[in-house]
Amino acid sequence: MTVIITAFERSPDGGRGLARDTRVRWALEEVGQAYDVRYVSFQAMKEPTHLALHPFGQIPTYEDGDVALFETGAIVLHIAERHAGLLPEDANGRARTIAWMFAAVNTVEPPILELVTAVIFERDKPWSEQRLPLVKDRVRERLKQLSARLGDAQWIEGAFSAGDLMMVSVLLRLRASGLLDEYPNLAAYVARGEARPAYRRAFAAQLAANTGS
Amino acid sequence: MTVIITAFERSPDGGRGLARDTRVRWALEEVGQAYDVRYVSFQAMKEPTHLALHPFGQIPTYEDGDVALFETGAIVLHIAERHAGLLPEDANGRARTIAWMFAAVNTVEPPILELVTAVIFERDKPWSEQRLPLVKDRVRERLKQLSARLGDAQWIEGAFSAGDLMMVSVLLRLRASGLLDEYPNLAAYVARGEARPAYRRAFAAQLAANTGS
Repeated sequence: MTVIITAFERSPDGGRGLARDTRVRWALEEVGQAYDVRYVSFQAMKEPTHLALHPFGQIPTYEDGDVALFETGAIVLHIAERHAGLLPEDANGRARTIAWMFAAVNTVEPPILELVTAVIFERDKPWSEQRLPLVKDRVRERLKQLSARLGDAQWIEGAFSAGDLMMVSVLLRLRASGLLDEYPNLAAYVARGEARPAYRRAFAAQLAANTGS
Repeated sequence: MTVIITAFERSPDGGRGLARDTRVRWALEEVGQAYDVRYVSFQAMKEPTHLALHPFGQIPTYEDGDVALFETGAIVLHIAERHAGLLPEDANGRARTIAWMFAAVNTVEPPILELVTAVIFERDKPWSEQRLPLVKDRVRERLKQLSARLGDAQWIEGAFSAGDLMMVSVLLRLRASGLLDEYPNLAAYVARGEARPAYRRAFAAQLAANTGS
């Protein structure tokens, strides 16, 4: 059975690895599952064929035989459940890893998405300069809490897991803002994620797709 | 074993059911699992005892014997996995339900949270009136896609599931904005959720806690 994911034909970030297919590629690389990629144009993403697969017209999607999934968090969890390496084996550890996956996308990522929106889509608005510090402070509130919890641990809870994969991926969106560097243990945590061979392969694959190199 | 969740001692919404403990109460009511509630003040939420349970100083949390969880999505999934009624039995249906749970919190909720922030925390800012239409349009984009996918179905995919529980809960935050009424099938979908006996019991329980009635 071949795993097929979708990705941007041309990522809006030009290959910096911030499009969400990188998260799924990373998970697949961690567990050693080969995959094919179907590249989708912005126009095709809003057409019925793709909308049947992804109701919100986004990437990535995941197909494996008769399984068809959307939503990065769900895809990463699906991969983690079917292969060793991304979820602890005990039930409690597994449940806590899933808690960290949800925390990444529902507690830490929303203010980061707001910052991305403010910087990219509201940059030219008259309120942009005055509003940005408020938005950054909301991100800092979450980073401060996450930093306190992580302390000097390598990973968020025991061994590297799908929780770290999702959290590092969410935090990577902050690099350009400089906010991450205000919390050295989080910057080091993200760097540890990026240093993993599986991440490097995932990053290289999306970069090659975006630059044709 | 007694299930214990945490909730606001006094919810900021005064009992309108929008605090996230309602989502967990609803899941517990759907599966017929009794629970106790420990009420936490705003001050106590930021203290070490609660932060050990919830790194981001929020509610709800979930304790059941030696399991301790945070993040509503993870708690609802944990409940759904341990009891019948909230997840399809076949593996594909289960994976797709989890996709809808993540879609609720990571695709549909972020623009809704942005709207809540704009209306509540930026109401007095000089840009508030001019910016609000932009924020509302971002919400409408998601509602339009969700409305198109739901069509005239009762629930988002087959029988009622944890995906519907999460999606209805996220959409309920929009009631005061009037945006939900622009999509009659979504308004009816939310009303179907609210009409479920389990939701009504969950809502009544949080209301009683907030009004002392």
